[in-house]
Amino acid sequence: MAHIKLRDDLFGITSLLDFRKETAAPLCELTQVLLRGESTLTEAERELIAAYVSSLNDCVFCSSAHTAATCALPGGQETGVKPMLTDIESLDITPKMKSLLQLAGKVQNGGNRVQQSDVDLAKESGATDLEVHDTVMIAALFNLYNRYVDGLATRRPEDPEFYKALGNRITTRGYKMPDDGYHALKVSSE
Amino acid sequence: MAHIKLRDDLFGITSLLDFRKETAAPLCELTQVLLRGESTLTEAERELIAAYVSSLNDCVFCSSAHTAATCALPGGQETGVKPMLTDIESLDITPKMKSLLQLAGKVQNGGNRVQQSDVDLAKESGATDLEVHDTVMIAALFNLYNRYVDGLATRRPEDPEFYKALGNRITTRGYKMPDDGYHALKVSSE
Repeated sequence: MAHIKLRDDLFGITSLLDFRKETAAPLCELTQVLLRGESTLTEAERELIAAYVSSLNDCVFCSSAHTAATCALPGGQETGVKPMLTDIESLDITPKMKSLLQLAGKVQNGGNRVQQSDVDLAKESGATDLEVHDTVMIAALFNLYNRYVDGLATRRPEDPEFYKALGNRITTRGYKMPDDGYHALKVSSE
Repeated sequence: MAHIKLRDDLFGITSLLDFRKETAAPLCELTQVLLRGESTLTEAERELIAAYVSSLNDCVFCSSAHTAATCALPGGQETGVKPMLTDIESLDITPKMKSLLQLAGKVQNGGNRVQQSDVDLAKESGATDLEVHDTVMIAALFNLYNRYVDGLATRRPEDPEFYKALGNRITTRGYKMPDDGYHALKVSSE
Protein backbone atom coordinates (compact mmCIF):
# COMPACT_ATOMS: atom_id res chain seq x y z
CA MET A 1 0.00 0.00 0.00
CA ALA A 2 1.28 3.46 -0.86
CA HIS A 3 2.32 5.76 2.00
CA ILE A 4 -0.27 8.38 1.01
CA LYS A 5 -3.80 8.11 -0.40
CA LEU A 6 -3.52 7.77 -4.20
CA ARG A 7 -6.03 6.82 -6.90
CA ASP A 8 -6.23 3.04 -6.83
CA ASP A 9 -6.56 2.54 -10.59
CA LEU A 10 -3.16 4.18 -11.27
CA PHE A 11 0.34 2.84 -10.67
CA GLY A 12 3.86 4.13 -9.98
CA ILE A 13 4.69 7.64 -11.14
CA THR A 14 1.29 8.09 -12.82
CA SER A 15 -0.47 7.91 -9.43
CA LEU A 16 1.87 10.65 -8.11
CA LEU A 17 1.45 12.92 -11.15
CA ASP A 18 -2.29 12.64 -10.63
CA PHE A 19 -1.98 13.38 -6.87
CA ARG A 20 -0.22 16.74 -7.24
CA LYS A 21 -0.77 18.36 -10.62
CA GLU A 22 1.02 21.63 -9.71
CA THR A 23 4.32 19.77 -9.39
CA ALA A 24 3.50 17.26 -12.13
CA ALA A 25 3.24 19.91 -14.86
CA PRO A 26 6.84 21.25 -14.64
CA LEU A 27 8.26 17.77 -13.90
CA CYS A 28 6.63 16.39 -17.07
CA GLU A 29 7.83 19.41 -19.06
CA LEU A 30 11.43 18.89 -17.86
CA THR A 31 11.25 15.21 -18.80
CA GLN A 32 9.77 16.01 -22.20
CA VAL A 33 12.60 18.47 -23.00
CA LEU A 34 15.35 16.09 -21.84
CA LEU A 35 14.04 12.81 -23.26
CA ARG A 36 12.05 13.97 -26.29
CA GLY A 37 13.45 17.40 -27.18
CA GLU A 38 15.94 18.09 -29.96
CA SER A 39 19.19 16.21 -29.24
CA THR A 40 22.12 14.47 -30.90
CA LEU A 41 21.36 11.50 -28.63
CA THR A 42 18.54 9.33 -29.98
CA GLU A 43 15.38 8.89 -27.94
CA ALA A 44 16.36 5.23 -27.39
CA GLU A 45 19.79 6.30 -26.08
CA ARG A 46 18.19 8.74 -23.63
CA GLU A 47 15.64 6.16 -22.47
CA LEU A 48 18.53 3.70 -21.96
CA ILE A 49 20.23 6.15 -19.56
CA ALA A 50 16.94 6.41 -17.64
CA ALA A 51 16.52 2.62 -17.55
CA TYR A 52 20.13 2.04 -16.43
CA VAL A 53 20.05 4.60 -13.59
CA SER A 54 16.67 3.25 -12.42
CA SER A 55 18.14 -0.27 -12.34
CA LEU A 56 21.11 0.92 -10.26
CA ASN A 57 18.62 2.50 -7.84
CA ASP A 58 16.66 -0.78 -7.63
CA CYS A 59 13.52 0.98 -8.87
CA VAL A 60 11.57 -1.85 -10.52
CA PHE A 61 8.74 0.37 -11.80
CA CYS A 62 10.98 2.93 -13.54
CA SER A 63 13.50 0.38 -14.77
CA SER A 64 10.74 -1.77 -16.31
CA ALA A 65 8.95 1.23 -17.86
CA HIS A 66 12.06 2.81 -19.41
CA THR A 67 13.44 -0.52 -20.59
CA ALA A 68 10.11 -1.07 -22.38
CA ALA A 69 10.29 2.47 -23.80
CA THR A 70 13.89 1.89 -24.99
CA CYS A 71 12.86 -1.32 -26.75
CA ALA A 72 9.84 0.34 -28.40
CA LEU A 73 12.07 3.00 -30.04
CA PRO A 74 14.19 2.62 -33.22
CA GLY A 75 17.49 0.95 -32.33
CA GLY A 76 16.44 0.26 -28.74
CA GLN A 77 15.58 -3.43 -28.94
CA GLU A 78 19.00 -4.12 -30.49
CA THR A 79 20.87 -2.81 -27.41
CA GLY A 80 19.88 -5.95 -25.50
CA VAL A 81 18.67 -3.98 -22.47
CA LYS A 82 16.49 -5.85 -19.98
CA PRO A 83 14.72 -4.62 -16.82
CA MET A 84 17.06 -4.23 -13.81
CA LEU A 85 20.14 -4.67 -15.99
CA THR A 86 23.24 -3.04 -14.47
CA ASP A 87 25.97 -4.57 -16.66
CA ILE A 88 26.99 -2.07 -19.33
CA GLU A 89 29.44 -4.45 -20.97
CA SER A 90 26.67 -6.84 -21.98
CA LEU A 91 24.95 -4.12 -24.05
CA ASP A 92 25.35 -3.83 -27.83
CA ILE A 93 25.92 -0.05 -27.95
CA THR A 94 28.54 2.39 -29.25
CA PRO A 95 31.69 3.17 -27.22
CA LYS A 96 30.30 6.70 -26.74
CA MET A 97 27.10 5.36 -25.20
CA LYS A 98 29.12 3.00 -22.97
CA SER A 99 31.14 5.94 -21.66
CA LEU A 100 27.97 8.01 -21.14
CA LEU A 101 26.30 5.16 -19.23
CA GLN A 102 29.44 4.84 -17.10
CA LEU A 103 29.20 8.57 -16.38
CA ALA A 104 25.49 8.19 -15.51
CA GLY A 105 26.40 5.38 -13.12
CA LYS A 106 28.87 7.64 -11.32
CA VAL A 107 26.20 10.33 -11.02
CA GLN A 108 23.81 7.75 -9.53
CA ASN A 109 26.46 6.94 -6.90
CA GLY A 110 26.80 10.65 -6.03
CA GLY A 111 27.72 13.90 -7.77
CA ASN A 112 31.16 13.93 -6.15
CA ARG A 113 31.92 10.44 -7.51
CA VAL A 114 32.26 11.77 -11.05
CA GLN A 115 35.93 12.13 -11.97
CA GLN A 116 37.59 14.13 -14.68
CA SER A 117 38.64 10.82 -16.28
CA ASP A 118 34.98 9.77 -16.66
CA VAL A 119 34.23 12.95 -18.60
CA ASP A 120 37.50 12.72 -20.58
CA LEU A 121 36.59 9.19 -21.67
CA ALA A 122 33.16 10.36 -22.86
CA LYS A 123 34.67 13.28 -24.78
CA GLU A 124 37.39 11.09 -26.34
CA SER A 125 34.56 8.80 -27.50
CA GLY A 126 32.98 11.76 -29.28
CA ALA A 127 30.54 13.13 -26.70
CA THR A 128 29.88 16.87 -26.85
CA ASP A 129 29.52 19.19 -23.84
CA LEU A 130 25.75 19.17 -24.35
CA GLU A 131 25.65 15.37 -24.43
CA VAL A 132 27.70 15.22 -21.23
CA HIS A 133 25.36 17.80 -19.65
CA ASP A 134 22.21 15.98 -20.70
CA THR A 135 23.55 12.61 -19.57
CA VAL A 136 24.32 14.00 -16.10
CA MET A 137 20.94 15.74 -15.95
CA ILE A 138 18.97 12.66 -17.09
CA ALA A 139 20.85 10.59 -14.49
CA ALA A 140 20.09 13.24 -11.84
CA LEU A 141 16.43 13.39 -12.91
CA PHE A 142 16.00 9.64 -12.49
CA ASN A 143 17.57 9.87 -9.05
CA LEU A 144 14.60 12.14 -8.36
CA TYR A 145 12.01 9.87 -10.00
CA ASN A 146 13.26 6.63 -8.45
CA ARG A 147 13.17 8.14 -4.93
CA TYR A 148 9.77 9.71 -5.56
CA VAL A 149 8.18 6.50 -6.84
CA ASP A 150 9.67 4.14 -4.22
CA GLY A 151 9.88 6.64 -1.34
CA LEU A 152 6.08 6.89 -1.38
CA ALA A 153 5.69 3.13 -2.00
CA THR A 154 3.55 3.50 -5.10
CA ARG A 155 1.94 0.31 -6.39
CA ARG A 156 3.63 -1.57 -9.22
CA PRO A 157 2.08 -4.24 -11.41
CA GLU A 158 3.83 -7.58 -11.85
CA ASP A 159 2.47 -8.17 -15.37
CA PRO A 160 5.17 -7.48 -18.03
CA GLU A 161 2.34 -6.56 -20.44
CA PHE A 162 1.64 -3.49 -18.29
CA TYR A 163 5.16 -2.13 -18.86
CA LYS A 164 4.99 -2.93 -22.56
CA ALA A 165 1.78 -0.87 -22.79
CA LEU A 166 3.31 1.91 -20.69
CA GLY A 167 6.48 1.89 -22.83
CA ASN A 168 4.32 2.22 -25.95
CA ARG A 169 2.38 5.09 -24.40
CA ILE A 170 5.45 7.11 -23.46
CA THR A 171 7.09 6.56 -26.85
CA THR A 172 4.01 7.64 -28.79
CA ARG A 173 2.60 10.37 -26.53
CA GLY A 174 5.79 11.52 -24.81
CA TYR A 175 5.82 12.94 -21.30
CA LYS A 176 3.53 15.93 -21.58
CA MET A 177 0.61 15.91 -19.15
CA PRO A 178 -2.60 14.78 -20.89
CA ASP A 179 -5.16 17.61 -21.08
CA ASP A 180 -7.92 15.36 -19.79
CA GLY A 181 -5.98 13.88 -16.85
CA TYR A 182 -4.44 10.44 -16.37
CA HIS A 183 -6.26 7.31 -17.43
CA ALA A 184 -5.66 3.79 -16.19
CA LEU A 185 -3.74 1.70 -18.73
CA LYS A 186 -5.76 -1.02 -20.37
CA VAL A 187 -3.61 -4.14 -20.51
CA SER A 188 -4.73 -6.70 -23.07
CA SER A 189 -3.79 -9.74 -20.98
CA GLU A 190 -6.03 -8.66 -18.07
CA MET B 1 37.26 23.55 -13.44
CA ALA B 2 33.78 22.49 -14.47
CA HIS B 3 33.44 19.43 -16.74
CA ILE B 4 31.73 21.49 -19.46
CA LYS B 5 32.20 25.05 -20.70
CA LEU B 6 30.14 27.36 -18.46
CA ARG B 7 30.04 31.14 -18.02
CA ASP B 8 32.94 31.98 -15.74
CA ASP B 9 31.20 34.74 -13.78
CA LEU B 10 28.52 32.32 -12.50
CA PHE B 11 28.74 29.61 -9.85
CA GLY B 12 27.06 26.32 -8.93
CA ILE B 13 23.52 25.77 -10.13
CA THR B 14 23.27 29.27 -11.63
CA SER B 15 25.97 28.43 -14.19
CA LEU B 16 23.98 25.32 -15.21
CA LEU B 17 20.63 27.14 -15.43
CA ASP B 18 22.33 29.63 -17.72
CA PHE B 19 23.91 26.85 -19.85
CA ARG B 20 20.65 25.11 -20.78
CA LYS B 21 17.62 27.39 -20.50
CA GLU B 22 15.17 24.85 -22.00
CA THR B 23 15.68 22.55 -19.00
CA ALA B 24 16.18 25.42 -16.52
CA ALA B 25 12.68 26.85 -17.05
CA PRO B 26 10.68 23.78 -15.91
CA LEU B 27 13.25 22.93 -13.20
CA CYS B 28 12.91 26.44 -11.72
CA GLU B 29 9.12 26.24 -11.98
CA LEU B 30 9.07 22.91 -10.11
CA THR B 31 11.28 24.35 -7.38
CA GLN B 32 9.15 27.48 -7.12
CA VAL B 33 5.96 25.42 -6.63
CA LEU B 34 7.54 23.09 -4.05
CA LEU B 35 9.54 25.63 -2.02
CA ARG B 36 7.52 28.83 -2.47
CA GLY B 37 4.02 27.68 -3.41
CA GLU B 38 1.08 27.49 -1.02
CA SER B 39 1.86 25.00 1.76
CA THR B 40 1.24 24.23 5.42
CA LEU B 41 5.02 23.89 5.76
CA THR B 42 6.73 27.27 6.16
CA GLU B 43 9.28 28.40 3.58
CA ALA B 44 12.01 28.02 6.24
CA GLU B 45 10.89 24.43 6.94
CA ARG B 46 11.05 23.58 3.23
CA GLU B 47 14.45 25.22 2.82
CA LEU B 48 15.65 23.22 5.84
CA ILE B 49 14.71 19.96 4.12
CA ALA B 50 16.70 21.12 1.06
CA ALA B 51 19.70 22.10 3.21
CA TYR B 52 19.64 18.81 5.16
CA VAL B 53 19.45 16.56 2.09
CA SER B 54 22.21 18.56 0.40
CA SER B 55 24.41 18.09 3.48
CA LEU B 56 23.80 14.33 3.47
CA ASN B 57 24.86 14.33 -0.21
CA ASP B 58 28.04 16.27 0.63
CA CYS B 59 27.01 19.05 -1.75
CA VAL B 60 28.74 22.11 -0.28
CA PHE B 61 27.25 24.60 -2.74
CA CYS B 62 23.59 23.57 -2.23
CA SER B 63 23.97 22.98 1.50
CA SER B 64 25.53 26.44 1.99
CA ALA B 65 22.96 28.17 -0.22
CA HIS B 66 19.88 26.56 1.34
CA THR B 67 21.22 26.94 4.89
CA ALA B 68 21.61 30.65 4.14
CA ALA B 69 18.10 30.77 2.69
CA THR B 70 16.67 28.97 5.74
CA CYS B 71 18.35 31.49 8.06
CA ALA B 72 17.10 34.46 6.02
CA LEU B 73 13.45 33.35 6.42
CA PRO B 74 11.19 33.90 9.48
CA GLY B 75 11.90 31.20 12.07
CA GLY B 76 14.86 29.81 10.14
CA GLN B 77 17.76 31.31 12.11
CA GLU B 78 16.27 29.88 15.33
CA THR B 79 16.53 26.27 14.07
CA GLY B 80 20.31 26.37 14.58
CA VAL B 81 21.01 24.95 11.10
CA LYS B 82 24.57 25.32 9.81
CA PRO B 83 26.09 24.38 6.45
CA MET B 84 26.82 20.63 6.12
CA LEU B 85 24.88 19.84 9.28
CA THR B 86 23.59 16.24 9.32
CA ASP B 87 22.57 15.91 12.98
CA ILE B 88 18.80 16.39 13.27
CA GLU B 89 18.82 16.09 17.06
CA SER B 90 20.88 19.26 17.43
CA LEU B 91 18.17 21.34 15.68
CA ASP B 92 15.61 23.39 17.56
CA ILE B 93 12.55 22.33 15.54
CA THR B 94 9.15 20.74 16.16
CA PRO B 95 8.75 16.94 16.54
CA LYS B 96 6.84 17.00 13.22
CA MET B 97 9.80 18.63 11.44
CA LYS B 98 12.23 16.16 13.05
CA SER B 99 10.16 13.26 11.72
CA LEU B 100 9.93 14.86 8.26
CA LEU B 101 13.71 15.42 8.17
CA GLN B 102 14.22 11.80 9.20
CA LEU B 103 11.95 10.80 6.31
CA ALA B 104 13.91 13.05 3.94
CA GLY B 105 17.14 11.38 5.12
CA LYS B 106 15.73 7.95 4.25
CA VAL B 107 14.78 9.22 0.79
CA GLN B 108 18.33 10.54 0.33
CA ASN B 109 19.63 7.05 1.11
CA GLY B 110 17.28 5.53 -1.50
CA GLY B 111 13.54 5.33 -2.18
CA ASN B 112 13.38 1.73 -0.97
CA ARG B 113 14.94 2.70 2.38
CA VAL B 114 11.74 4.49 3.46
CA GLN B 115 9.78 2.27 5.84
CA GLN B 116 6.14 2.38 6.86
CA SER B 117 7.33 3.28 10.39
CA ASP B 118 9.05 6.46 9.09
CA VAL B 119 5.78 7.64 7.55
CA ASP B 120 3.75 6.53 10.58
CA LEU B 121 6.00 8.59 12.86
CA ALA B 122 5.53 11.68 10.66
CA LYS B 123 1.74 11.22 10.60
CA GLU B 124 1.57 10.64 14.38
CA SER B 125 3.48 13.92 14.74
CA GLY B 126 0.72 15.65 12.79
CA ALA B 127 2.03 15.54 9.20
CA THR B 128 -0.62 15.40 6.47
CA ASP B 129 -0.46 13.28 3.30
CA LEU B 130 0.46 16.41 1.35
CA GLU B 131 3.27 17.28 3.78
CA VAL B 132 4.62 13.71 3.51
CA HIS B 133 4.37 13.95 -0.29
CA ASP B 134 6.11 17.31 -0.47
CA THR B 135 8.86 16.25 1.94
CA VAL B 136 9.63 13.18 -0.21
CA MET B 137 9.49 15.27 -3.38
CA ILE B 138 11.75 18.03 -2.02
CA ALA B 139 14.22 15.38 -0.85
CA ALA B 140 14.07 13.72 -4.28
CA LEU B 141 14.48 17.09 -6.04
CA PHE B 142 17.66 17.86 -4.08
CA ASN B 143 19.01 14.45 -4.98
CA LEU B 144 18.68 15.76 -8.53
CA TYR B 145 20.21 19.19 -7.79
CA ASN B 146 23.14 17.88 -5.74
CA ARG B 147 24.12 15.40 -8.46
CA TYR B 148 23.67 18.01 -11.19
CA VAL B 149 25.81 20.64 -9.43
CA ASP B 150 28.62 18.30 -8.31
CA GLY B 151 28.40 15.81 -11.20
CA LEU B 152 29.40 18.61 -13.59
CA ALA B 153 31.95 20.02 -11.10
CA THR B 154 30.52 23.53 -11.08
CA ARG B 155 32.63 26.18 -9.38
CA ARG B 156 31.82 27.09 -5.80
CA PRO B 157 33.01 30.18 -3.93
CA GLU B 158 34.68 29.81 -0.54
CA ASP B 159 33.47 33.20 0.76
CA PRO B 160 30.51 32.77 3.20
CA GLU B 161 29.31 36.24 2.11
CA PHE B 162 28.53 34.78 -1.31
CA TYR B 163 26.08 32.27 0.17
CA LYS B 164 24.52 34.92 2.39
CA ALA B 165 23.89 37.06 -0.71
CA LEU B 166 22.56 34.02 -2.62
CA GLY B 167 20.31 33.07 0.31
CA ASN B 168 18.91 36.61 0.33
CA ARG B 169 18.31 36.50 -3.41
CA ILE B 170 16.39 33.22 -3.34
CA THR B 171 14.28 34.29 -0.36
CA THR B 172 13.31 37.61 -1.93
CA ARG B 173 13.06 36.66 -5.63
CA GLY B 174 12.21 32.98 -5.32
CA TYR B 175 13.23 30.42 -7.93
CA LYS B 176 11.56 31.70 -11.07
CA MET B 177 13.92 32.32 -13.97
CA PRO B 178 14.76 36.01 -14.30
CA ASP B 179 13.38 37.47 -17.54
CA ASP B 180 16.70 39.14 -18.33
CA GLY B 181 18.91 36.10 -17.67
CA TYR B 182 21.25 35.34 -14.81
CA HIS B 183 23.52 37.98 -13.34
CA ALA B 184 26.68 37.43 -11.33
CA LEU B 185 26.13 38.04 -7.61
CA LYS B 186 27.84 41.13 -6.27
CA VAL B 187 29.42 40.21 -2.94
CA SER B 188 30.17 43.17 -0.70
CA SER B 189 33.39 41.70 0.75
CA GLU B 190 34.97 41.24 -2.69
